[in-house]
Amino acid sequence: MKAFPLLVALALAGCVGNDLRIAEQGSFAVGGTVTRAPGEFDFARPTRPDGRTLHGDHAAVSYQIPAHAKATPLAFLPGYGQTSRCWDTTPDGREGWRTTFLRRGWSVYLVDQPRRGAAGRTATVATPSAVPDDQLWLENFRIHAGAFPEGDAAMDQFLRWMTPDTGPIDGTLVADSLVALTKRIGPTVLFTHSQGGIFGWAVPGRGGKVAAIVAIEPGAFPFPEGEVPAPIPNSSPFTPTRPVTLAPDAFDALCRVPILVLFGDGIAAAPSATDWPGDGWRARLAQGRQFVACAKRHGGDVTLTHLPEVGIRGNTHFPFADTNSEAVADYVAAWLRAKGLD
Amino acid sequence: MKAFPLLVALALAGCVGNDLRIAEQGSFAVGGTVTRAPGEFDFARPTRPDGRTLHGDHAAVSYQIPAHAKATPLAFLPGYGQTSRCWDTTPDGREGWRTTFLRRGWSVYLVDQPRRGAAGRTATVATPSAVPDDQLWLENFRIHAGAFPEGDAAMDQFLRWMTPDTGPIDGTLVADSLVALTKRIGPTVLFTHSQGGIFGWAVPGRGGKVAAIVAIEPGAFPFPEGEVPAPIPNSSPFTPTRPVTLAPDAFDALCRVPILVLFGDGIAAAPSATDWPGDGWRARLAQGRQFVACAKRHGGDVTLTHLPEVGIRGNTHFPFADTNSEAVADYVAAWLRAKGLD
Repeated sequence: MKAFPLLVALALAGCVGNDLRIAEQGSFAVGGTVTRAPGEFDFARPTRPDGRTLHGDHAAVSYQIPAHAKATPLAFLPGYGQTSRCWDTTPDGREGWRTTFLRRGWSVYLVDQPRRGAAGRTATVATPSAVPDDQLWLENFRIHAGAFPEGDAAMDQFLRWMTPDTGPIDGTLVADSLVALTKRIGPTVLFTHSQGGIFGWAVPGRGGKVAAIVAIEPGAFPFPEGEVPAPIPNSSPFTPTRPVTLAPDAFDALCRVPILVLFGDGIAAAPSATDWPGDGWRARLAQGRQFVACAKRHGGDVTLTHLPEVGIRGNTHFPFADTNSEAVADYVAAWLRAKGLD
Repeated sequence: MKAFPLLVALALAGCVGNDLRIAEQGSFAVGGTVTRAPGEFDFARPTRPDGRTLHGDHAAVSYQIPAHAKATPLAFLPGYGQTSRCWDTTPDGREGWRTTFLRRGWSVYLVDQPRRGAAGRTATVATPSAVPDDQLWLENFRIHAGAFPEGDAAMDQFLRWMTPDTGPIDGTLVADSLVALTKRIGPTVLFTHSQGGIFGWAVPGRGGKVAAIVAIEPGAFPFPEGEVPAPIPNSSPFTPTRPVTLAPDAFDALCRVPILVLFGDGIAAAPSATDWPGDGWRARLAQGRQFVACAKRHGGDVTLTHLPEVGIRGNTHFPFADTNSEAVADYVAAWLRAKGLD
């Protein structure tokens, strides 16, 4: 009986402690190209280019599988200029959604898209920019909204998430790397953010095994050929928010996937001359409602949630980074549960 | 008493299972610069460059702290063209040294150096290369050695670890980011590989809190001004293996740190006209022995191990990626224990 209290303590420490229990973790590349220089490679003269290869244009995936993992893995694709780091922490150093969803029992796969971050090896070069433009992005990302972490240190950390591309952004390469990932790991819930959302819409139609899509403020919405609406005018200085055109069968494949779309706060209800940082997002939110209507005509299962309407307030373009990131995760987890993906 | 067997099972599952127990994980930036464009930023006209900033030139650090962590953290700096991924897995998908050392109870910090990988945001641009050169690196890295994982899939994964720089490689920036890291997390065992080794030697002299250095096939060795030997001639087509010159006080600071240097297999004992891929490493190993002698004159505690001499055979330039990576980790862990860093 002396062992009893010790065993109780050990069982508590092992089973209900706050530690993450990870069964497996690591990294791998998916997708990509192989380029071969003309000629024959000569092992005695390896500095000559003849016949040498370049393995590039892949995605790099960092993964963790928790103990007793749920059946359906989650994959996270970031937006323009971002890497896996945006899911791995918050600007103020709290747990990122990687860890948030691991704690809830899902396997998590973080994707660096081809030609960025850990997947920088590219077959086609683009020169990175070093133009100071932090404030341009802060405005476009609506970082002035109330739920962004306070303080200079958090702002400094957030600005150091941005990473330039080593080659041209190629949405087909990105989508096909996700197709390859889902074929490797099985039906996947695909989380996309911002520009990543644009690429994510194509994945089901290109043969990806997609169990659901959670699109966080996607940069544009998809429509089938023949039903593509005009871009919605807005005062943003960025590229107009042109809809994505999908072939009818690709749109139908997308409509067989449950979809949750989230928009944060600080988005004007109507356009004005002065509110441009939010105005691109007003246009995208309106385009999102057009998409919901179109997808429903095609039998789709789409939920579009403007977070303030469900009482989650103050979110920037990065709801998973804001101080209420756990509340937003709760909302997403409840939707996944409702779709039988828990 | 009915609860007793259940508690035994729970305690076993919780405490002696094969799962990793992670108390905390995440990511942060350290070091770096802030560049500010001339003029005043105007919130109403954010597309104008005036007064905008660029936060860049930092290192990006991905960390995991296990439950019941040992006191001294380990930080890992990769070599030329590599990111954290080289520590996060092996080419054949086994656990990388990140997980190997986490399982042994150390906190692990993986560093992407300024201007590469997750730390790609740079204040000074360099255009990445897209020249096919896989075979050049395979030869220089002695990947033909016997312990490299077999098969095309492992080779494909390995070649997809390489990632170009977004800006010029700046050893001082790299060293200072490590100084900032060690000031943040306390006295650290610094693992360096290849070119990363060159930058690591400067960290103690620049104020870094370094508990020990484990240098795996460093690209060059340091000497104090006035005692720098001539480069050792060799037939490698790469940059000559010039020694690193440190100021006398920086060399003395380094000599107060226990140092373990590892070299793998496939390195010729004497030069020949045909063995160039290994010949640069022959020269570096010889320079390493010069460094050991010099450091000992200055009171240093340096162990240089040519792995075949302790019965660990077949290693390439990446011993932590080879099939015997766990045996090499055992050797390093024993050395850390001997230095009181367990």
